[in-house]
Order: sequence, then structure tokens, then C-alpha cells
Amino acid sequence: MSADASPPVPVGILVHRGERVESRHRVSYAIADAAGALRQALGEHDRPVFPRSAVKPLQALVLLESGAAERFGVSQAELALACASHGGEPMHVDVVRAWLARLGLDQSALECGAHPPTHRPSAERLIAAGQAPAPLHNNCSGKHTGMLTVARHIGAPLKGYIAAEHPVQQRVAALLAALAGIDALPAPATDGCGIPTWPMTLAQLATAMARLADPQALSAPRRAACLEVRRAMSAHPRLVAGSGRPCTAIIGAAPEVLVKTGAEGVYAAALPALGLGLALKVEDGASRAAPVALLALLQGLGALPPPARADLAGLARPLLRNHAGVAVGRIEPAPGWPPLG
Amino acid sequence: MSADASPPVPVGILVHRGERVESRHRVSYAIADAAGALRQALGEHDRPVFPRSAVKPLQALVLLESGAAERFGVSQAELALACASHGGEPMHVDVVRAWLARLGLDQSALECGAHPPTHRPSAERLIAAGQAPAPLHNNCSGKHTGMLTVARHIGAPLKGYIAAEHPVQQRVAALLAALAGIDALPAPATDGCGIPTWPMTLAQLATAMARLADPQALSAPRRAACLEVRRAMSAHPRLVAGSGRPCTAIIGAAPEVLVKTGAEGVYAAALPALGLGLALKVEDGASRAAPVALLALLQGLGALPPPARADLAGLARPLLRNHAGVAVGRIEPAPGWPPLG
Repeated sequence: MSADASPPVPVGILVHRGERVESRHRVSYAIADAAGALRQALGEHDRPVFPRSAVKPLQALVLLESGAAERFGVSQAELALACASHGGEPMHVDVVRAWLARLGLDQSALECGAHPPTHRPSAERLIAAGQAPAPLHNNCSGKHTGMLTVARHIGAPLKGYIAAEHPVQQRVAALLAALAGIDALPAPATDGCGIPTWPMTLAQLATAMARLADPQALSAPRRAACLEVRRAMSAHPRLVAGSGRPCTAIIGAAPEVLVKTGAEGVYAAALPALGLGLALKVEDGASRAAPVALLALLQGLGALPPPARADLAGLARPLLRNHAGVAVGRIEPAPGWPPLG
Repeated sequence: MSADASPPVPVGILVHRGERVESRHRVSYAIADAAGALRQALGEHDRPVFPRSAVKPLQALVLLESGAAERFGVSQAELALACASHGGEPMHVDVVRAWLARLGLDQSALECGAHPPTHRPSAERLIAAGQAPAPLHNNCSGKHTGMLTVARHIGAPLKGYIAAEHPVQQRVAALLAALAGIDALPAPATDGCGIPTWPMTLAQLATAMARLADPQALSAPRRAACLEVRRAMSAHPRLVAGSGRPCTAIIGAAPEVLVKTGAEGVYAAALPALGLGLALKVEDGASRAAPVALLALLQGLGALPPPARADLAGLARPLLRNHAGVAVGRIEPAPGWPPLG
């Protein structure tokens, strides 16, 4: 890509310092229905992106469809953790630890690697206790435990369950392709937690989320799985992300608005009341811009009831404070963005 | 700004995952000489940006020009700290603490606020010791101590030295304007550490840095101050930033290449061997992209001798690793970027 051929992705989110724009984020998005029709789109909706963790609610469908959840008595809370990028808080770690134990496993079976809890107080408690971060604290430990549950159920090797060729990942890929309405996904790259991340366009990701939102045309088992995933996320918003996190705040304020963040500025949403799915990508990958863009889109679609809009006002236009606590700026949508028609 | 009027800032830096581009950063830059001539520029070089901490080497000139440094016996290490966005490591905190003590002050005089050391092991040691972050750990504590030194020297109030109207900040603004070759700077916003951050275009910031690099046409005291600031940064690269930090690595590898990072994707450089100044801004404010863009520009200008290029190769094209330590991607300049002519 030469400098002259830079793609024209419109600016969506502005970062102000005082009354001046300091930084800008460009955002592409797609909004689709369950029939695969693109209802709204802007920017590079047809370029493959890595959906990263935004597809966790879709990956979790395999746990249900395969029969693994039923066989191993996976609870609604555990299912919410399978859909989560969790903060590594005790409420998250405890659920995953107990689930692994029920499989006869411990965290040594997890191949996600370790990182400190993203929930800062939990990370600081670990340090103060002289403990190193462990795979249980990885924000993806619930998803990985779900994949181990599937592997055990179908008799596939537990070791190496993160490889793209492993039967569990192949089931995930087949399901993502089916929901996105395509024959096969392009070759994957490796996600932060070691599993394959399969490229999808925003239009395809929005279509898949629309089918989670409106699964009527799907097979009966897949339809049932969609309803169960939605119920789990609605019932346990604090398990899907955690304290202080946008996904938790949004689902908590509007339980029928099922949103999921992904690394590098991705967000996906399933909107059952509207029968729509939504996917967005911040061009530069900024996590600070993605929820602001998401909320602007949700508001533009009328997806948020007034009480939820009030609850989420601080998240929709976040204030920036300096180290002395003084408000020095704000993040907000650019005037006229999104240009929903 | 409407979505259709999004400014055409070219993509400069690509973030790859596997062999696919995952995220992109757009970068504007300006390269100027001490006469104020723009030698190279791309993108929004004429739009005012907040230079943030990238002007610390210029702010520090006031400490020297005012006579405050001489009167209070400011050492070369202390001067380097006045130019620093330091990591809050013991080597930084100890210098600032002793400097404050020589003024008869302690960190309660600092109005920068507190944040955990940006150097992670230092932050973790604080937590493990049950200690809260203090103003000394603020990455700007050296700059603030320099400003207190000036305030004491000129008999201005110490309290409130961060206000835009305070004589110290007015001296800084006058100096920045003079070096940038303009009559007066636009109204400031508030920086992360509470002081005013005065908007400048990249062309103006590059001009000011060119005069630091080539101060021949400046007054004798200002010329002397420029040489002292450069010597301090060259001699103490570890004090200008810290362990694992790009500024420290670049100045350490090429002591005549004086670079300074600023928040929100800004970088400035003074290149005495070429008589040039350089300023860049990543449109979205990403700190991961700024040093990669800077190194590409420095290499394009021939500013880095071959041994320095070799030392800095890992910083010029950083590998991205996932939580299990596997290389999953890289950050690098877009093909053909920068289009230095």
C-alpha cells in the first residue's frame, strides 16, 4: 500500500483536549439482517478483518450444538464465561476453576498463556500477594475451558486444542462460515490467546451476529443454542467482561443488546429487538474509540431505551482526566457521525 | 468535521497479524531547518497539534536562560531529568528528590499529580511494598522541579506554577513561540501533568527543534542553553526516559540524535549533524506507531549510523507476541513510507 493509496475510511471519533481536536479515529461498520442484507455500512465493510474476541458468543455456540454443554452440565454462568473477555476478577476465575475441575482438569490444560488480570485492582492484589499471573487470569480462560469441554465430548485430543487443524477449531470455523453465509473462511492468523482468528468482513460478521439476534431460519439445534447464549449474556453481564467494562455496562443497562468487544478496535452486537447484527472496526485498533463508536451506532439505530441511554451517557462521551483528576478533554463522535440513513 | 470531510492523512504504519494487515496508523510529519524552511512534509503539517511532552527539551531551556540552573547548581543529570518523560525508576526518583531537597522543597510542592511508574517492575515493587504512587513517580516530576527552580529564582510564587498565566509558563510560551518563529501561540489546553500545552503546527515544532539542533543564529545565552540541553540528553539517555524505552534506546545508540516522545503519538527530534528538526504526529495518538514512524524517518534521512541502525532494528519493526510468547505479528512502515524525496 503506497501512501497515496491510503484507503478513505471516514473519521468517526474525535479526542478533544480542551476545545481542540487532539487525535482522531477512523471507523468502518456494517449493519446487516439475518437474511444477509446489508442495511447500513461505512468505510471498509468489505475488507476482511480479524474479529478477535468479538466472535466469542458465536464460538460458544459449538459448546451447545455439540452436546458438550449438556453432557458436562455447563451452567449459565459458565456459558457466559465462555463468551467472555473477562477481567480476571475472583468472580471470573472461580467459575472457570470449578468448571475445569468438573472436567477433571486444572489450569495446566489451558493453552492460552498467562497475563495479569485486566481488572487493575485484581492485578494489584496478585502482586501484593506475591503471586504470578496464571492461565486462569487470561481474559480468554472461559472460552478455552469451553473448547476443552468440546474436545473431551467429541473424543479429540485435549493437548493442541488451539491448533487451526484441531477438530474443535474446525467446528468453530465451519460454524462461523455458515453464520456469515460463506463457503469457507480465509486462512487464519493467531489470536492473543493462541487460537486461530479467522478473517471475516464486517458485513459477514454483522450477518453472523444478525443470525444470533434472529435465528428463526436456522436449524432447531442452532436456534436453541443462539437463544441459550443470548440468555447467558443477558443474565450475567458482569461475567461477560467485568467491573468498569463497557460490555458489562451496556448489557447491564440494556439486557437485550448483546455486545462483545474484540482486540484492535473491534465490536460486534446482536440486536434481537431489531433483528439486526452490527460489526465495527476502528482502523487504528484503538480500544478507547470502539465503545464510543458502538454507542453512537446503537443510539442512532434506536436500540437503547431512554433509561439505558442515561445510564450509558458517561460511556458514550467519556471525559478525559489528567493525573491530578482535572477534566482536560473528552472522546465523542465526530459531528454527523454515524451517517445512518 | 463531517465524515465526508475526513482529512487525507496517509497511512504510515501497518500492524500485521500473520501476513494480513490488522490495523493502520496515519502519520503527518514535518522536517525543517533552523532558518524555518520546510524541507519535507506529509499530511497535516500545518494543523496545530498539542506537542505534549515532546517539547520538554525546549521547556528546559528556560531553566538555563533564566540563570536558575546556575544559581541552584543544577547538575547535568538533573537537566536531563528536566527534559524527561521518565519511567519512575529509582534512578529517576532519586535525582528529582535530591534536587527538590536542595531547593528546600519536597514532592508536596509538585503539582503534577501522581501516577504509578510507567516502568512496570518499578510499579510492581511499589505495590508489593504497599506504597501508593506519589508525585515523584510522575513521569514529568523532573520538568516540574525545573519549573519550581525557575519560579524560586525569579521570585514568582511556587504555588500555582502550573497555571498558564504564571510567569514561568509565560516564559516557556514566549520561548516556544520565538523558537517556532511565530509571534504568539494559540490558547493552550491542559497537559496530563497540569501545565499548559501550547498548540503548534508540526512545521513550527520542527523549526523549533531545528534551532535546538543548529542554534548558531540564536542569542549567545540561548545558544549556550541549547548546547547544554543537548549535552545533558546525550550524556544521560537513561534519565531522559528509562529502561526499555525508545527515547533511551535511540539516544543511547546515536548520542547525536536527540529525540523526545510526547503523548498522543507525537515525536520530536533535533539532528545537529544535519542541522534539521523533525516533528511527527500519529493521527490516532497511538504510542506504538510513533517510534516506528520516527525510526523510518531517521533512517530515510541518513541520520542513523549503521551500528545504530543495527542496534535499533528490533524497535524499527517490532514483533508482536501473544500471551504464550509466540510471535503473531509485527509493526512496520507501510511500503514506500515515508516518501522522502
